[in-house]
Amino acid sequence: MAEDSAAPAPISSLGIVGAGLIGASIAARAAQAWPGVAIRIYDRSYPNAAHVAGMWPNAAVADAVEALRACELVFVATPVGAIADTVAALLSGDGPKPVVIDTGSVKAGVIEAVAARIADPSCFVPGHPLAGSHLSGPQAASPDLVAGRVFVLTPTETTAPAALALARGALEALGAAVVSTDARLHDEMLALTSHLPHVIAYALVAGLEAFEPGEARARLAAGSFRAQTVFAASDPEMWADILIANAEAVERAARGFSAEIERFGRLAKAGDKAAIMERIAAIRDMRKAIGD
Amino acid sequence: MAEDSAAPAPISSLGIVGAGLIGASIAARAAQAWPGVAIRIYDRSYPNAAHVAGMWPNAAVADAVEALRACELVFVATPVGAIADTVAALLSGDGPKPVVIDTGSVKAGVIEAVAARIADPSCFVPGHPLAGSHLSGPQAASPDLVAGRVFVLTPTETTAPAALALARGALEALGAAVVSTDARLHDEMLALTSHLPHVIAYALVAGLEAFEPGEARARLAAGSFRAQTVFAASDPEMWADILIANAEAVERAARGFSAEIERFGRLAKAGDKAAIMERIAAIRDMRKAIGD
Repeated sequence: MAEDSAAPAPISSLGIVGAGLIGASIAARAAQAWPGVAIRIYDRSYPNAAHVAGMWPNAAVADAVEALRACELVFVATPVGAIADTVAALLSGDGPKPVVIDTGSVKAGVIEAVAARIADPSCFVPGHPLAGSHLSGPQAASPDLVAGRVFVLTPTETTAPAALALARGALEALGAAVVSTDARLHDEMLALTSHLPHVIAYALVAGLEAFEPGEARARLAAGSFRAQTVFAASDPEMWADILIANAEAVERAARGFSAEIERFGRLAKAGDKAAIMERIAAIRDMRKAIGD
Repeated sequence: MAEDSAAPAPISSLGIVGAGLIGASIAARAAQAWPGVAIRIYDRSYPNAAHVAGMWPNAAVADAVEALRACELVFVATPVGAIADTVAALLSGDGPKPVVIDTGSVKAGVIEAVAARIADPSCFVPGHPLAGSHLSGPQAASPDLVAGRVFVLTPTETTAPAALALARGALEALGAAVVSTDARLHDEMLALTSHLPHVIAYALVAGLEAFEPGEARARLAAGSFRAQTVFAASDPEMWADILIANAEAVERAARGFSAEIERFGRLAKAGDKAAIMERIAAIRDMRKAIGD
């Protein structure tokens, strides 16, 4: 994890919408790094927001999303399906506006939905922390899901340079490794590296239905299966939202994936050991290149 | 890991063919649990056998597979493609025969191949330790890959009860959890829980080919992708052998798996959030039932 920054906080007030795993982790890291910064937390469930706010002396509950308009920076850490309405509520109306960073796992759809709702999305900075976990809820929150982790930003033509600079500066002050990229590229890469892997975990576990439940089924399930299906424990609503929001990119990734599985099947049935070994060796090199 | 047994060793001499990860791990555990038992190790590479034998005072190198016929129990821990010939070499000829346990990841094909080579396979006990690792070679060996792990046995009608009893007793004395089952069921379950997961890892990594190599590709690869593709580092020859030996069962598992992925894709494109959540919740329960 990153060291606590000795630099002054780049903002004086922080808002967080959504007191789940990600929202609570951002709050935890901000409370740790910026003890002088006021944190206001809103959740559609008041008890959840109060639970998270109660963990730090500089944090308090907000009664409504609109109350966070007065903050300098607001993170929107709601389920993907609720992001656009929340961002619109924060950036509508007159008066000074906060910089708003969302944390949704899908970016192009969120950007379109925000653009459809408000005339001026210049203060909206689309983002996504690569801080997933098969755990969920504020109980699993940790400053280490922010500090030392990649936080992707996918600014658009309409994003104000000052808003982007403030967002980047704040994230770096929290110890995140900011990666700026195109929303479509983000969605295609995450379709392959996060969304499809979750569908894979579901589909592998569903394969157990072909076997009688019981002791033998549990004891014959090898370690590779257990490791690949840990994500099957992820939150169903969060993942239903993500799969729907990025359905087309996930389908494209799944098509290439299935074609490769069929290719291995053909080579195995043909007994073509040399071709299988050659393909595995090339794949091993590609895997090594992205590191652990 | 299991505690060292205080009971006397059930055999006086042990042979091991194949000084790779599994063979060396069995040797390590036997040397630990049975300091009075002579261990003889054969590998087609003499230096490999000598390297492993040199690690324990009661172990020595054998010059030929046939030299292990004098042992009470022999483990055949070669690549799958070499098992049947090795078992035949151990169980051919006159005189007393050892009990032979193989450690191949595929069982039905090995059993058929052994039956085709020798008239009397009664001393052959087909086995498979669920002790896989993406690591390979004797450097990664550990007694903990035997003690406390499941060791599947798939005896046939021709397996002598006395041979099975000796195999089971020896494995239990080494601290393994012996699970006895049908070879076909083993192969179908392992196709789903080990062989298909390896193909999945390969096919996921191959998906990276759609993106330009470089920094962004590495940094946008989410944690779920990294975790699901660790197995892509496994030994190419070992896995080519396994995929060829169990090609039909892997193809059946892959068909059900692909159908489930397509089902998720259809539901996502239709925006059917309730159906996706319901399916994920049912899958989550199945996954929980097999434990960590």
